[in-house]
Amino acid sequence: MRLRNLKNTKTILEESCFLVKNPEDYKGNTDALFSKKQPLHIEIGMGKGDFIIQMAKKHPDINYIGIEKFDKVLARALIKIPSSLSNLKIYRYDAVNISSLFEHEVERIYLNFSDPWPKKRQEKRRLTSENFLKEYDFVFQKTKEIELKTDNVAFFLYSLETLSGHGYRLSKISLDYHKDLTIDTAVSEYEKKFLQKQVPICHVSAQK
Amino acid sequence: MRLRNLKNTKTILEESCFLVKNPEDYKGNTDALFSKKQPLHIEIGMGKGDFIIQMAKKHPDINYIGIEKFDKVLARALIKIPSSLSNLKIYRYDAVNISSLFEHEVERIYLNFSDPWPKKRQEKRRLTSENFLKEYDFVFQKTKEIELKTDNVAFFLYSLETLSGHGYRLSKISLDYHKDLTIDTAVSEYEKKFLQKQVPICHVSAQK
Repeated sequence: MRLRNLKNTKTILEESCFLVKNPEDYKGNTDALFSKKQPLHIEIGMGKGDFIIQMAKKHPDINYIGIEKFDKVLARALIKIPSSLSNLKIYRYDAVNISSLFEHEVERIYLNFSDPWPKKRQEKRRLTSENFLKEYDFVFQKTKEIELKTDNVAFFLYSLETLSGHGYRLSKISLDYHKDLTIDTAVSEYEKKFLQKQVPICHVSAQK
Repeated sequence: MRLRNLKNTKTILEESCFLVKNPEDYKGNTDALFSKKQPLHIEIGMGKGDFIIQMAKKHPDINYIGIEKFDKVLARALIKIPSSLSNLKIYRYDAVNISSLFEHEVERIYLNFSDPWPKKRQEKRRLTSENFLKEYDFVFQKTKEIELKTDNVAFFLYSLETLSGHGYRLSKISLDYHKDLTIDTAVSEYEKKFLQKQVPICHVSAQK
């Protein structure tokens, strides 16, 4: 995603009380970041943050952590978070090292419009590849849930295969989930564009 | 499927050496029907038989049983089987009672264009519903494989959910498998019509 330059990116990152500076320090103790001990849901690659901010507002009984590695996108997310929101934190981190961040703490992972890395040689970078799913096993507590949305059908079908291959039960599979009102989810800025263009969006819930 | 009346349906059924008259008698001993002891693959709802006849010709190292409950369709299949084909038998049976036919003998089940039974109250009749999957557990030996093809997307997505929910790993998921040359399979008469009309066909391989 190309973003117009946000001049004060550095300042925003430095001053935000939502951006956790040393996230590894909270590994195994993520509860300490929040005012209440409650289930932890994370979004990997949160982009400009619309999805996770909406979710945090909607579900005060869940703690949320959004993860993003690109500073400019992060800054755009940080300026949007209402200062009263106590159940949301942001990590600036590359998901490749996600097992440095959590240890059997997470209950649900959201993957929204992740990069499909379409070439075969890029497979390892896909957030639903076998190596990522192994990392998630370490990150997850007993309840393991992955909620995935994408406009890329090839990446979607690939993910159904890797998830079922890794022991997940698949539910709420949809190739056009906005037509299916039974799925409760928030809409990201990225997603809004697809909806305007009437691009169908695929969805799956995976549990194990 | 509506078929023109085949006047001598009864005679064909009575005289065919491919139609097994008392299939329950072979439960646990299906090998006795064939000249060679080799893996057993079955098709439930084989219709006019094109698929399973092609498969039997193509793979002489596999024993095949086609199951169909409707006499008229059965007769159409029986007259097409070349008399030299020693690795194919046909059962006239309702799949609801499939555990009366096999006991830990089958290695692969083919489900081709099964009736999708779209209404919620018809769910139990779908060949990938939870109750059928439980029956298949009894029918299957150690290796359990289901190969499914359908033109009905809703039934396809439903089946992905029930199969993964029942512990199957999904592979070769395709929403238009004729574009995907990696899947080796035969084409049924029913399927040919869809291909002519360019209706995309969904495919999945499920193993556990």
